[in-house]
Amino acid sequence: MEQGDLYVSAEKLRAFCTEVLERLEVPHEDAEITARVLVEADLRGIDSHGVARLSRYVNGIQNGMMRPKAKPRIIHETPSTATIDADAGLGQPVSFNAMKLAMSKACEHFLGFVGVKNSNHFGIAGFYAMMALAEDMIGICTTNSEVLVVPTFAKDAILGTNPIAIAIPAGKERPFVLDMSTATVTRGKLEVYARLEKEIPPSWATDENGIATTNPTRVLQNIIKRAGGGLLPLGGSLEESGGHKGYGLALAVEIFSAVLPGALYANKVYPKNSEGKPLPSGLGHFFGAIRIDAFRSKEEFKHDMDDLIQRLKNSPKAAGADRIYIHGEKEFEKSEYLAKHGVPLNAKVAADLQSIGKQIGLSEPF
Amino acid sequence: MEQGDLYVSAEKLRAFCTEVLERLEVPHEDAEITARVLVEADLRGIDSHGVARLSRYVNGIQNGMMRPKAKPRIIHETPSTATIDADAGLGQPVSFNAMKLAMSKACEHFLGFVGVKNSNHFGIAGFYAMMALAEDMIGICTTNSEVLVVPTFAKDAILGTNPIAIAIPAGKERPFVLDMSTATVTRGKLEVYARLEKEIPPSWATDENGIATTNPTRVLQNIIKRAGGGLLPLGGSLEESGGHKGYGLALAVEIFSAVLPGALYANKVYPKNSEGKPLPSGLGHFFGAIRIDAFRSKEEFKHDMDDLIQRLKNSPKAAGADRIYIHGEKEFEKSEYLAKHGVPLNAKVAADLQSIGKQIGLSEPF
Repeated sequence: MEQGDLYVSAEKLRAFCTEVLERLEVPHEDAEITARVLVEADLRGIDSHGVARLSRYVNGIQNGMMRPKAKPRIIHETPSTATIDADAGLGQPVSFNAMKLAMSKACEHFLGFVGVKNSNHFGIAGFYAMMALAEDMIGICTTNSEVLVVPTFAKDAILGTNPIAIAIPAGKERPFVLDMSTATVTRGKLEVYARLEKEIPPSWATDENGIATTNPTRVLQNIIKRAGGGLLPLGGSLEESGGHKGYGLALAVEIFSAVLPGALYANKVYPKNSEGKPLPSGLGHFFGAIRIDAFRSKEEFKHDMDDLIQRLKNSPKAAGADRIYIHGEKEFEKSEYLAKHGVPLNAKVAADLQSIGKQIGLSEPF
Repeated sequence: MEQGDLYVSAEKLRAFCTEVLERLEVPHEDAEITARVLVEADLRGIDSHGVARLSRYVNGIQNGMMRPKAKPRIIHETPSTATIDADAGLGQPVSFNAMKLAMSKACEHFLGFVGVKNSNHFGIAGFYAMMALAEDMIGICTTNSEVLVVPTFAKDAILGTNPIAIAIPAGKERPFVLDMSTATVTRGKLEVYARLEKEIPPSWATDENGIATTNPTRVLQNIIKRAGGGLLPLGGSLEESGGHKGYGLALAVEIFSAVLPGALYANKVYPKNSEGKPLPSGLGHFFGAIRIDAFRSKEEFKHDMDDLIQRLKNSPKAAGADRIYIHGEKEFEKSEYLAKHGVPLNAKVAADLQSIGKQIGLSEPF
């Protein structure tokens, strides 16, 4: 939230995004789900995955990368698992339905896991993992993504920032919601530092020779030119600092999300045709739902979750720190605040949305 | 492998460990499994979890922390899941059987997940995850552990080094075997640096005020005195370098391994009675088996795994690097080498084993 930000209610933003997508021939229900996932990201403070992305979806639909009227179908199924071909549609509706399917399978068989292939960008992984909470289930979600991350000892990026989301219910306390990319930071963070002309920590990215660098502009230019280097996995460039662990997590996510359902993987994603025109990105996702009472009474589990959370939060703080967080806590607080006060849009994003509105013939976007 | 190391064949080491455990009233089969897991750690180059640990198990059995004749039993079960009470026995036999159970459930229902409570140290998580490979399944294993890791912004350690192991089959290539603690490094690494009087990187540990330190001796002394500080999660002490992500992974492992099966968690593990005598550690574990063909044909999956692995390995190297590794690769190579040449035991470990042998009345240990 900065000076000059425009505050728009979540409701208005959702209505606007839905309208835009519907005018691009996305069916009403799919448009609504997509809008909901986008605005949820803004509410949780993950602006990079919020309405600021709408223009990419509009472009994606217009250039044929995303099929507005996609008809996803189940191509492999067992009582507790399934694989869905997303038919190159928007990532959000197929992911929402895949998680629903995982949950309904878990409802009957205690565990439900569903993979998705031939999909596109799906927004924040945490949205789908959190769907499980209402049913007293653990929700899991991973996806592969645009190639940006450099494996340990490699020169070039081959993997995505490949997020992992895990949502676990508690009792009186808020649920645990981990939603993390397996890179140290994502590209947006480098863009902020580049704008401020600040050096980045050496655990964030490598230069065109695959060596850790503190120059964000150099990294961003190399990414655009595909000149080598890129973002570092969690743990940085060295085995000494555990970079091979972050690389291992990114690779595990790539396998679960893409190789298991048969999606495009590693540097095969976001292919182009012979004329350089973008084809469907071919991304894959993985969704899991686990019933708590598959292992133990829900009540006992929630009691222990509350106690664990309180032990962590009430523990002595490091010098200079005044609070220990549980994952998801900051986002829940932000979300409650913004739901009341409106979502802040910076000037660039606001102008972007106005221009999309005009382009598709909406006289007053929001 | 250093000068002065004694080389002993894996077979002899296994026989010795089995014999020692049997003399302490561990049933033959359980003793054999435990010996196998210990020696497998040495073969894979993870000496800290190998036969060097035998003395702790001997002590654990002798002081009542580990029950040699434990009778684990299933206390909760569904067709695809189960929870086992380990009856405070050795961690290895119950974990071997829990993974077998997960696999047999997956064999029938495509997914099988089993939690274990009331257990003890189980050796390397990778051993159990890798059991799934022979059945063309993905194997998953996590455990909570001794309190050593400091959450982001906390002063004291509250979580364990909580490892995650994931084993995924490939075709012609070696399988992917990630076996990583969720701390940047484990305690053994600090002990090596302390011996060499070398500074540690600031992403490894915090001092008694919860501030990152480069002094390994100070950290180790604080751990012994419970004076505050401890090991850092993957990503280090700052949110800037992703420390909250490592903390989130450690917490997720704590919940899956301990809260889900109803084991002791966080700083409740390794309790003592009112006289300071150690009670059973109360650790918990989590095991998962996922059939590849729950999602896709095994052959197609393995084909893509091979291609993904080759893409990574054949990718251009960073300046100064000559090889990109897949997780598990170094350990497979080491294991093949040591299976031929014998397992190196340093003087301290060799003397330790000799002394155990003498104590239980074995005239010639190995």
